[in-house]
Amino acid sequence: MAAPDFTLSAGPVTVTARTLAGLGKPILYHYDPEFRATFTRTQDKVAQILKTSNDILLMQGEAIVGLEGALRSLITPGMPVLNLVQGVFGKGTGYWIADFGAELHEIEVGYDDAVTPEQVEAYLDEHPEIRMVCLVASETPSGTVTDVSRIGPMCRDRGILTYVDTVSGVLGMPWETDEWGLDLCVAGAQKCLGGPPGIALVSVSERAWEAIYANPAAPRDSYLSLIDWKEKWLGEGRFPYTPSVSDVNGLEAALDQALEEGVDAVVARHEAAAHVTRTGARAMGLELWAVREGIASACVTSIRLPDHIDNALVRDHAREVYGVMLSHGQGAGNLIRLSHMGPTAGGLHSIVGLAALGRSLADLGVTVDIGAGLEAALGALSAQRL
Amino acid sequence: MAAPDFTLSAGPVTVTARTLAGLGKPILYHYDPEFRATFTRTQDKVAQILKTSNDILLMQGEAIVGLEGALRSLITPGMPVLNLVQGVFGKGTGYWIADFGAELHEIEVGYDDAVTPEQVEAYLDEHPEIRMVCLVASETPSGTVTDVSRIGPMCRDRGILTYVDTVSGVLGMPWETDEWGLDLCVAGAQKCLGGPPGIALVSVSERAWEAIYANPAAPRDSYLSLIDWKEKWLGEGRFPYTPSVSDVNGLEAALDQALEEGVDAVVARHEAAAHVTRTGARAMGLELWAVREGIASACVTSIRLPDHIDNALVRDHAREVYGVMLSHGQGAGNLIRLSHMGPTAGGLHSIVGLAALGRSLADLGVTVDIGAGLEAALGALSAQRL
Amino acid sequence: MAAPDFTLSAGPVTVTARTLAGLGKPILYHYDPEFRATFTRTQDKVAQILKTSNDILLMQGEAIVGLEGALRSLITPGMPVLNLVQGVFGKGTGYWIADFGAELHEIEVGYDDAVTPEQVEAYLDEHPEIRMVCLVASETPSGTVTDVSRIGPMCRDRGILTYVDTVSGVLGMPWETDEWGLDLCVAGAQKCLGGPPGIALVSVSERAWEAIYANPAAPRDSYLSLIDWKEKWLGEGRFPYTPSVSDVNGLEAALDQALEEGVDAVVARHEAAAHVTRTGARAMGLELWAVREGIASACVTSIRLPDHIDNALVRDHAREVYGVMLSHGQGAGNLIRLSHMGPTAGGLHSIVGLAALGRSLADLGVTVDIGAGLEAALGALSAQRL
Amino acid sequence: MAAPDFTLSAGPVTVTARTLAGLGKPILYHYDPEFRATFTRTQDKVAQILKTSNDILLMQGEAIVGLEGALRSLITPGMPVLNLVQGVFGKGTGYWIADFGAELHEIEVGYDDAVTPEQVEAYLDEHPEIRMVCLVASETPSGTVTDVSRIGPMCRDRGILTYVDTVSGVLGMPWETDEWGLDLCVAGAQKCLGGPPGIALVSVSERAWEAIYANPAAPRDSYLSLIDWKEKWLGEGRFPYTPSVSDVNGLEAALDQALEEGVDAVVARHEAAAHVTRTGARAMGLELWAVREGIASACVTSIRLPDHIDNALVRDHAREVYGVMLSHGQGAGNLIRLSHMGPTAGGLHSIVGLAALGRSLADLGVTVDIGAGLEAALGALSAQRL
Repeated sequence: MAAPDFTLSAGPVTVTARTLAGLGKPILYHYDPEFRATFTRTQDKVAQILKTSNDILLMQGEAIVGLEGALRSLITPGMPVLNLVQGVFGKGTGYWIADFGAELHEIEVGYDDAVTPEQVEAYLDEHPEIRMVCLVASETPSGTVTDVSRIGPMCRDRGILTYVDTVSGVLGMPWETDEWGLDLCVAGAQKCLGGPPGIALVSVSERAWEAIYANPAAPRDSYLSLIDWKEKWLGEGRFPYTPSVSDVNGLEAALDQALEEGVDAVVARHEAAAHVTRTGARAMGLELWAVREGIASACVTSIRLPDHIDNALVRDHAREVYGVMLSHGQGAGNLIRLSHMGPTAGGLHSIVGLAALGRSLADLGVTVDIGAGLEAALGALSAQRL
Repeated sequence: MAAPDFTLSAGPVTVTARTLAGLGKPILYHYDPEFRATFTRTQDKVAQILKTSNDILLMQGEAIVGLEGALRSLITPGMPVLNLVQGVFGKGTGYWIADFGAELHEIEVGYDDAVTPEQVEAYLDEHPEIRMVCLVASETPSGTVTDVSRIGPMCRDRGILTYVDTVSGVLGMPWETDEWGLDLCVAGAQKCLGGPPGIALVSVSERAWEAIYANPAAPRDSYLSLIDWKEKWLGEGRFPYTPSVSDVNGLEAALDQALEEGVDAVVARHEAAAHVTRTGARAMGLELWAVREGIASACVTSIRLPDHIDNALVRDHAREVYGVMLSHGQGAGNLIRLSHMGPTAGGLHSIVGLAALGRSLADLGVTVDIGAGLEAALGALSAQRL
Repeated sequence: MAAPDFTLSAGPVTVTARTLAGLGKPILYHYDPEFRATFTRTQDKVAQILKTSNDILLMQGEAIVGLEGALRSLITPGMPVLNLVQGVFGKGTGYWIADFGAELHEIEVGYDDAVTPEQVEAYLDEHPEIRMVCLVASETPSGTVTDVSRIGPMCRDRGILTYVDTVSGVLGMPWETDEWGLDLCVAGAQKCLGGPPGIALVSVSERAWEAIYANPAAPRDSYLSLIDWKEKWLGEGRFPYTPSVSDVNGLEAALDQALEEGVDAVVARHEAAAHVTRTGARAMGLELWAVREGIASACVTSIRLPDHIDNALVRDHAREVYGVMLSHGQGAGNLIRLSHMGPTAGGLHSIVGLAALGRSLADLGVTVDIGAGLEAALGALSAQRL
Repeated sequence: MAAPDFTLSAGPVTVTARTLAGLGKPILYHYDPEFRATFTRTQDKVAQILKTSNDILLMQGEAIVGLEGALRSLITPGMPVLNLVQGVFGKGTGYWIADFGAELHEIEVGYDDAVTPEQVEAYLDEHPEIRMVCLVASETPSGTVTDVSRIGPMCRDRGILTYVDTVSGVLGMPWETDEWGLDLCVAGAQKCLGGPPGIALVSVSERAWEAIYANPAAPRDSYLSLIDWKEKWLGEGRFPYTPSVSDVNGLEAALDQALEEGVDAVVARHEAAAHVTRTGARAMGLELWAVREGIASACVTSIRLPDHIDNALVRDHAREVYGVMLSHGQGAGNLIRLSHMGPTAGGLHSIVGLAALGRSLADLGVTVDIGAGLEAALGALSAQRL
């Protein structure tokens, strides 16, 4: 099968030619002074999009290497940890927490819903022993978000550590690591940033480092170790292992573009794209997956499918017949996702996604009003831009 | 500081424009049918350069993620393991073996020497309890090799597992995974293959899988897990985590070039480059690091420096004054390395390295016969090619 | 202003990443044996898409360098030449013919119409003195085509030379240089082929060479000379001037893709895209520029605008507000063009163009039924592909 | 044959990865506002390297399109023109001058020599009717330069037009278009600038425009027309034909690098590389082609070969056996050229060229002292940099 005409997937996303040129730059030795400078600059730029003065670690691997490494670093046997579950990634975090030996507490809601700050507050009031709260800021598989802006400060004020999976959250929602007091954040490059898929962006607060250093089980001399990066690279200027020079170059190119556009402008662009997409989907007669719009993410729009239409079938049809790569729900439910992340957040990319989805559903026998949907989406876009 | 004119480092190495173009290809969704096909093809091509019909895992991260994951998968508490040490990487493997709970046996020689098959045989005769032998095929930091071609079959015939770090060995020396009965090999892409630095190439034999599945401590649901790749990707076609689409594209491009040239031809090219470089170095009046030429690797030529000249000084001088990035010994001793790996193995690249090293030493007060060295190297090259 | 999200212009067109990688390949010396081989291979591939065994010249410059050079080579003072005019490029050819000293005969029709084979036949019957017919196969500025398949053989059978501007014709319509007996064809790389804009593809028949060699005014020792290419490059293997190594590399990459897809398949893809676009435009309530669909080109769909809406205004609006670069008529009339050339011929690219045009017109106060238009276009696409 | 390891040719030269990335940028429509801005910016940057406030025309094609177009624009029938000949390009200019109908005067010296300002002065004193002086600033085929810094002002002061071929001169020698009063300069991008080979850089003074507009034979409505660019693009913002978007992008990237390094620094780097190369060549026992070092160009070092060794043989040997592409003399004599232009001007690139040449000559039976040559070149380099 040929390459798709359009990739509107939930990550890795289509990236710009400038980011690709970054990835394709000549590979330098990792200890070349030029690359060392690049690495340090790139760390600083990650700090800017995370809005933090915390340490930044660029761990080489998919974001999950940062998530696992960080959680293993923080968790001690028997530690009471509250995990918020509103999707498959949150659920998976819980399995890890239990595996790693903590005492697992969970607030779980339907995967089309969101845990509220009120629920968290009530739970913490009842369970003053909780020492860490874990949450997924943006549940990519189902397209819902958690209100980190309120849960973060709530934890900080109570002296509770926060472990935040913001893989698809950063640049897809307003983000204030320091203002919200977030201790450990793990972001991905291949989502709203439009960067390469092979690098994990981790921020670690002073308080998190204290917890990690106090933890004898925290990975050391390991690919999963945060301490290695802290001591060897940040401390002594030696890499714990060879970083992926190409991924760092691609990452820097993506960061440069985001910073030139402005962090707030990038977030606003994602929100605008989400509004256009949702407007079109509704006018087409489709139902949003999220139970209420306030918790729908700005990076993907999840559409609830009728029970008799399997989401994989729809996705395969859109790809094979119309050359558009969409995503399904990775187990979150019978949904299909129209992504608007990175360079495909904005403008007529939403029309492409809606057209591919609408026509695929029609081909498969679902009643949809394609014309009304596309017209409404374009109307919303026009209203935004004029 | 500007980019170097030449990178003759010990990896990541300079790669070809075609490999860079692979790295810079548009990023597809990892479940796009086109990328799934690419991933499978790339696995098969790795198998060809490793000459194996074993399972191939492409773990996303520097080669060390494969080394750690594999060792954790194989080692059980109290397991008697023989580790061969002739350099810093072998030494590090021993630390891991002990940390992971095995009973560590070691044969250790000077870092300018090599453990011989005879030594291994004698040890195994005396210690029939040994269940696994660990070795580093090519000690990149000091530029020596181990005779895997004899140690491998010796272990296989005794029913002993082999764990082989061949990060810089593959394509830099003759390699026969299946013929030599090697159970677990971990290769790097950024060395003699001239590929990207972000991906680990792992081969696992049936016997190794049996040991791993019998090991309750083998990582599962972890970034370090080999089992996840076996069950999810090889078994069910689901990636355990998002692979780096760009690194896989870059890797495939590098593999294509190696296979078009021919695996044996690539190895021969590295050996020829090493011969030219050694000839030139000796004629210049320099001393090779390896105690005998038979154990000197074909991927880097290590030069022993006089005690009063710090290797870091030489390396920095060559980079700053002559724009050539060389490598020092990563702790193996007071040596400097002229690399000839990937696209820089062959032809006048050796002259560039020798010129940079010779002139830097002269600038720093060491007596070298630069003219004689370069002339001898060119003479050796001419003899090879005419 | 930022780069556009989509370029749907009438050339240079968006090209694939593979073609861009070709353009970005390392630059070799033009006499490097590797580049000489590339140049010769590329000539052969051009011959394949033109379906000819005539000589191929790759002149370095925009297609117009080939058009001018060829016409100057063919025309002698007082030579009776019939020029077919149905658009601005045909009109321009006539000016040149007169300037270069020939006796100019013209059949001219409205720029939304096409000269018919019958008209040509009648003219040639009345004017047996005509020695050459000049025509533009595809008038890109207005989106109409001429029936070369009938006019070509008619001329050949009468012993009349043909000079054919097929800059946007090749791969955008069925093309048979030899079967139709076309003497001199000039094609562009930056149109339906999806190649780079800096190279002219010229085919010259034996009969054309005879005419050229018999012409004392034919350019020699000039950038415009066809003879120089024939004698120096084809004859002696010396380039008359340095060719653009990068453009040749980009051209070959584009040719490879076309040949892998198949010449007929590429043409069919353009025709399918044109059908979808026209269907959508009509359903939106728009009027096609071409007076009848049979003469509408497959590479651009020209839309007639109401007199009170200036086409430049529409184009600027689509670019500024919706990030889509469309083309206007280059003086052919008050029209706007939706292009479907090269990689943007096919699939949802037509939807992008129609959405940008429809919404721009609505923003500017023109009544259009956007929903009906997009729905009809998608319906036509679905019918083609299911 | 595989690609060469090193291209040290006389142009097109090896360009940097950044310039290649420019060439490989997505192709925009030439009337896209983003590209229009790029084109204008690029013109301004060309003006900076030429140090002029004259009009800049970026004609699409190899530099010769600018040379021919400019000469045809300036020459009127019977016009007395003095042409300076010290190499094959100067000789060719003379053929054109005569062909175009002027009264040709020439001062010709051996192709290893240079016409002096004194010779020009004497000739002009004797021939007050001369209205234009034509010269080649840097004769690339033989590696000699003309003293434009004195001849330019001499002509300006006498009211004589100057037509200057500086294809390989710009950035390879100090250059002051305005200070020296040069009326028409044509530079190439693919030489010392390290840009793409498909674009001609032309500067035109007010006085030159007056002469051109007064010339009824000046090309108009032609690919060779300077007037078209002046009136259509500079005057009305319409391109006379589609420019090569890719070449302009590549050109801008190369210009950016030159301007960041600094024009004077780039020239100094070429001069330093020439000094190292000449020093090495002499110490190797070779004879420079130029009769005196003061007229040897800084962009190529031409070596006189013994009569019994054909230069083509040497070049082919260096390419086939050692993977280094050198240039021969394009008819200027039995010489071989070591180029040091653009990114290969400086550092160990000279060593690569000397090693390839020296060893090739030795293989072919010429007595050379390779070791002494390389040692001397490295000594000269060390002296420059320490």
